[in-house]
Order: sequence, then C-alpha cells, then structure tokens
Amino acid sequence: MSSIATNISPNRVEAGKTPLAIDWVGGVDGTLRMLDQTKLPTEILFIDCPDVETVWEGIKMLRVRGAPAIGIAAAMGVALAGKIYQGTDSTELLSHSRKASDYLRTSRPTAVNLFWALDRMNALLDRLRGKDVSTIRQSLLDEARAIQSEDRDMCVAIGLAGAERMPAKGGVLTHCNAGALATADFGTALSVIFHAHAAGKEVTAYVDETRPLLQGSRLTAWELMQRGVPTTLLCDNMAASLMRTGKVHAVVVGADRIAANGDTANKIGTYGVAVIAKAHGVPFYVAAPSSTFDFSIKDGSQIPIEIRDSKEITHGMGKQTAPDGVEVYNPAFDVTPAEYITAFFTEAGEIAPPYPESLARRLRK
Amino acid sequence: MSSIATNISPNRVEAGKTPLAIDWVGGVDGTLRMLDQTKLPTEILFIDCPDVETVWEGIKMLRVRGAPAIGIAAAMGVALAGKIYQGTDSTELLSHSRKASDYLRTSRPTAVNLFWALDRMNALLDRLRGKDVSTIRQSLLDEARAIQSEDRDMCVAIGLAGAERMPAKGGVLTHCNAGALATADFGTALSVIFHAHAAGKEVTAYVDETRPLLQGSRLTAWELMQRGVPTTLLCDNMAASLMRTGKVHAVVVGADRIAANGDTANKIGTYGVAVIAKAHGVPFYVAAPSSTFDFSIKDGSQIPIEIRDSKEITHGMGKQTAPDGVEVYNPAFDVTPAEYITAFFTEAGEIAPPYPESLARRLRK
Repeated sequence: MSSIATNISPNRVEAGKTPLAIDWVGGVDGTLRMLDQTKLPTEILFIDCPDVETVWEGIKMLRVRGAPAIGIAAAMGVALAGKIYQGTDSTELLSHSRKASDYLRTSRPTAVNLFWALDRMNALLDRLRGKDVSTIRQSLLDEARAIQSEDRDMCVAIGLAGAERMPAKGGVLTHCNAGALATADFGTALSVIFHAHAAGKEVTAYVDETRPLLQGSRLTAWELMQRGVPTTLLCDNMAASLMRTGKVHAVVVGADRIAANGDTANKIGTYGVAVIAKAHGVPFYVAAPSSTFDFSIKDGSQIPIEIRDSKEITHGMGKQTAPDGVEVYNPAFDVTPAEYITAFFTEAGEIAPPYPESLARRLRK
Repeated sequence: MSSIATNISPNRVEAGKTPLAIDWVGGVDGTLRMLDQTKLPTEILFIDCPDVETVWEGIKMLRVRGAPAIGIAAAMGVALAGKIYQGTDSTELLSHSRKASDYLRTSRPTAVNLFWALDRMNALLDRLRGKDVSTIRQSLLDEARAIQSEDRDMCVAIGLAGAERMPAKGGVLTHCNAGALATADFGTALSVIFHAHAAGKEVTAYVDETRPLLQGSRLTAWELMQRGVPTTLLCDNMAASLMRTGKVHAVVVGADRIAANGDTANKIGTYGVAVIAKAHGVPFYVAAPSSTFDFSIKDGSQIPIEIRDSKEITHGMGKQTAPDGVEVYNPAFDVTPAEYITAFFTEAGEIAPPYPESLARRLRK
C-alpha cells in the first residue's frame, strides 16, 4: 500500500502531479496554501492565506470545494489563527482560535464535513486549556494535519480496493469530480483510476463533462492529465454512443449520500450513466468512504434532492443560451438504485451484493 | 387536417407564433426573408436578402440550417436571381439564374437537400427555354414556393400522424431541434407536439439542451414557447432522473438518416435517450419524412458518423472550459437500433414493427 502511495506522490506537489487542493507548508509558522479551483483548468493559482478571512472567503466562493477538502481547509484555518496570534497569553490564544472556528463555520451553512472538522478542533481547544502558547499552536496544526492525513489514507484504501477491479487494459468512465481536488489527495473514484494506473494497468479515462457546471471537463480531466493518465473528454450525452463501441470496461463514480439499502445519491447524470452501463453490460462501481453511508435512511426515496438555480443552465459560462423565462429542471443530484451498482469501494474494501446485508455487516457499527 | 393547420398558422408570421426560417413575401418583385438563427434565442433578426450572395452567406454561416430549410432557401435564391434581373433578354435571364444555382450549390458541400432543390430548379430552367422574361420569373418563384409548400404539407402530415400517440395530458421529451426552424414550417418531431397541442392535448414539452451546440435550448425551447406550448428545459444528463419521476409519457425525435432495417442516425445523445426511455417503459418515436429512409443501407453500422471539432466541447460558448490538449470524443450523430423505436411517424402515417417488413411495405417504391 505505501509503495504505491509513494509512487504517485501523496505528499508533495511535483511537476506533472496534481497540486493539493489545500495544504500546510512548513511548521507552525508555515503557510496555509489553497489552490484556487475557480481558475482551473486554464490557470494554476495558489493562494497563501494571510488570515482566517481569506480561508473563509475561499470556502464561500468555492475556491476550495468537496466535503473532505473543505473540512481540512477549515481545520487548517483554526491552526492559522494560532500561527497569527502574536501574544503570550494562552487563554487569549484559545479564545482567538475559538472565534476563528465559529467564524469559519458560517462559510458554507450546509457542509457537514465543515462542522465535523470544526467540532473536532473545538474539542481539542477544550483539552488545551492550561497549556502554553507554543504547545497550543503546535497541537492545532497537528490536529489539522491529522484530519488531512486520515482523509488521505482513506482515499488510498478506497483506490487500492477499486484498482483491482479495473481492466488490465481498457476504458473507465467517470462522471463529475470525485478526485484529489475534493479531498486531501487522490479522491475516491479518481483514486481508483490513479491506483490502477500506478499499478501499471493501461487504463484510459473517459470523462463526462458534467453539465451544467462542467466539473468533469474543468477539474477531472485536468487532474487525470496532471498525473499522466490517458484522458478523453466527452459530453454527457455521448456516453451511450461510446459504450456501444465497446471501449468502456467499467464505470466508477463517487457519492454524496448512500442509503442503508445501497441507493446512492450523486451528481445529476449519475443515474443515467448507470442505466446505460447496465444496458451495455458494463460494471458500475461507487467509490466512497464509509462516512458517506447513512444507515438512518432506509432507501433513496428519503434523500432530499437540492434544486438549483435555473441560470446554471440558461446562462452557462456567462452567456445566455436559452429563451427568457423558460422553465428549467435543474436537480443537483439524482439517486441510482442499488440494483444498478455492481459493488462499492470503501476504505473497508470492496462490498458486493447482496445489499443491504453486505453493507450492514461490513459498515454498520 | 386543414383546420388544425390553419389553427396553428402555417402560412403567416404572427405575434406569438414561430417566424418561418425562410420565406418569400409578396409577388415576383417581393422579398426573400431569412431568419438569422445564429442570433436566437436572444434576438429575432430577419435578413431581407438583397442579392444571391446574401443567401449563399446565410446558408454557409448556418443562419438558415436544417436540410429542408436549406433546400427552400436555395430554390428561393434562384428565384431571387430572376427578380434581380433588370433586362429583357430571356436567354440572359436563364443564364443568370443558372449561374446563381451553380453558385448556391457551393454554400454547403454535403447538404443533400440543397442539391436536390437546385437540381429541381435547373430542370425547370431547361423547360423554360424560349419563354418570355415575365413567365420565367414567375415560374421560378412558383417552383420555389412549391418546394416550400410540399415540405410544409409533409410536416403537417407527420405531425398529425404522431399527435394521435401523444398523451391527452402529460410530458413529451425531445432532443436537438427537429422543428419549424429546420423545415418550411412545423418541423418533424416538433410538428407532432404542435399538432397535439393544437388538438387540445395538455402536453408539456421537455427539451434536452443538446450539447455541445445547444440546439435544444437555443432553438427548440424557443420555438415551443413561441407557439405557447408549456416547455421545460433540462441538461441532457437530467433526462433519466426526469423519466424516473414519471413525468415523461413519450419521447419524439427527428432523424438524419434511417437504414432499411429502421436503425436511425440522429443527433448525438438520441441513442442514450432511447436506452433510458426503454428502461422506464416510455415509448420512443422517430418523426421523419420518407425521404430520410435510405433503403440502400441495410443497417445502422453502414451509416458513416461525422466526427466534429473538439473545440465545440472544450471551448463551449467561446470560453475555454477544458485543459489544453485534452483528447475529445465528439461524434455529431449516433445510431439508435430499430428495436428501441416504438414507431415511426411519416407523411405516409405511423409505421410500427415488425421492421423491416413494415417499412419496406409502406415506404419502399
């Protein structure tokens, strides 16, 4: 496991590798560095955050996006408050850090990982009462880095579980961005492709552009090319035609929320890909950490679907391309029923049917 | 048939109706008027063509598009050469008109309807030798108008054949633009929806935006709204999610070329819609004139598929949204196998399975 991980450079930004979405460079007086994803793929711009406000703005404006990456950014934002504090009063330092945490919590009101990461930093702050300034600053950074490194390990485990199912030579189609840019590194679905590639498999990645916001063409295609994976971009409506040519041997996607029975909510368009994969006998895999499974939800019908602004479709890329006043159907997600899913790749390994028994046995605490 | 046709105004541009893509207003000294479709849907701009060069440029630059509409524009372009001729020498008039015809033939080198319409005008020019100037000018206009009116009648017949299969109340999904803008009027797939609507059926049109060139959002949604049909726009990848809601009761699309066995080439994405329609038990119809059937082609595998410029996907709407140098899969069409097609709507009526027997019996000469 560690040799492959080293091979594809989990820790360092190198030429030809994917820069990390969020990272802390150096020690307690180091730099919180954020990749501005709104500039991709035409510009690679890093923001070295001078203050907590810059972190807040980066989360708010989607410069950093993807639930795990947001959590890491927020935790590192609290560590940044510690770095910035110039005084010697440890009580004051704890108070400043807590304020930073409360402030960062307001950056994206519905981001569960954001709250989870900040709760964890707050619990640490409670434990740090009475410690000296230097210990507090180091501890905050260590905790933020632990969150980052645990997420990275999880992504590696998911990738290794899935890589075994990838073809020795063939095409793998993915939808939206479930990549390094959304996590500490590697991602979920893309981690599977990266690890298959690193293990010497001759994999070609086929990337749905993913309308309306084009995460596939802007982010996923870019990440894959950065790591040297042969990559072909297509419009979402071309996937069926491509599958009929026989060039796609597997589909792998991420997930936003998975019900107890395996029904999977993911970016809009995922369900359509699952239907056409089944029609062509192509296996359809979902790569996700166990934290994505919500055993309190019985099936997909209970997952609420966010409906987004119609302008994302009518004014794509800033230009109006639809008539004034047209009604629009713009759900952010769809639900793929469990019967379409060949297997799940999780940090606990591959989980195949029969669902829901296999999911409960392997993942339910 | 005529009452419905009158009801939805086949002949005149009226407020709230779809302007004709191409028309001749007035008598032999009248005006060749072209709707500039490149400006839709944000601007309705008519070009009153002062000369044949303007017609040529309009075809070349896709201001008028769609095979039947191009044929009509070219035929009317020859009539325009007659109108412009100021002399009294009928031989010279015939020569000028023939030159206009030869010139218009170079506007889009692969447009079969263009050649067909100009061949028909040339045959007329042959028959007009020895006639006087006034007769020639009137005959050229009459022939161009006959081409227009025959196409309109065909579209009406297709629409009436299909309207019967549309739900009394429900959703009809279409892909790309097979509408009035591509024909003399009404279109093929959209003629079915227009005639169902005019017959009092409570039809909601669901329109795939149709990447990469967005003919669905730019043209189809606009046409439907102009005629007062309730219209909802969606991204191509949302059709499966929409069908799962139960809101789509039929799919109707056009066709570019249909093989003897019923395999149908149409705009990329059509095949994917057919697959997801079948998975949801939604009938899938193809609306096309008999001239679209090519009985010299046994099945869809023999239909060549044009591969288009990758920039249509990487630089949509003028802005770069994909990494430099990414490979792209951009076929203009796909082929839907006949077994996915519930029925064809043609000017000879509805043709249902068993294919190919039913097609040969009803259409083959």
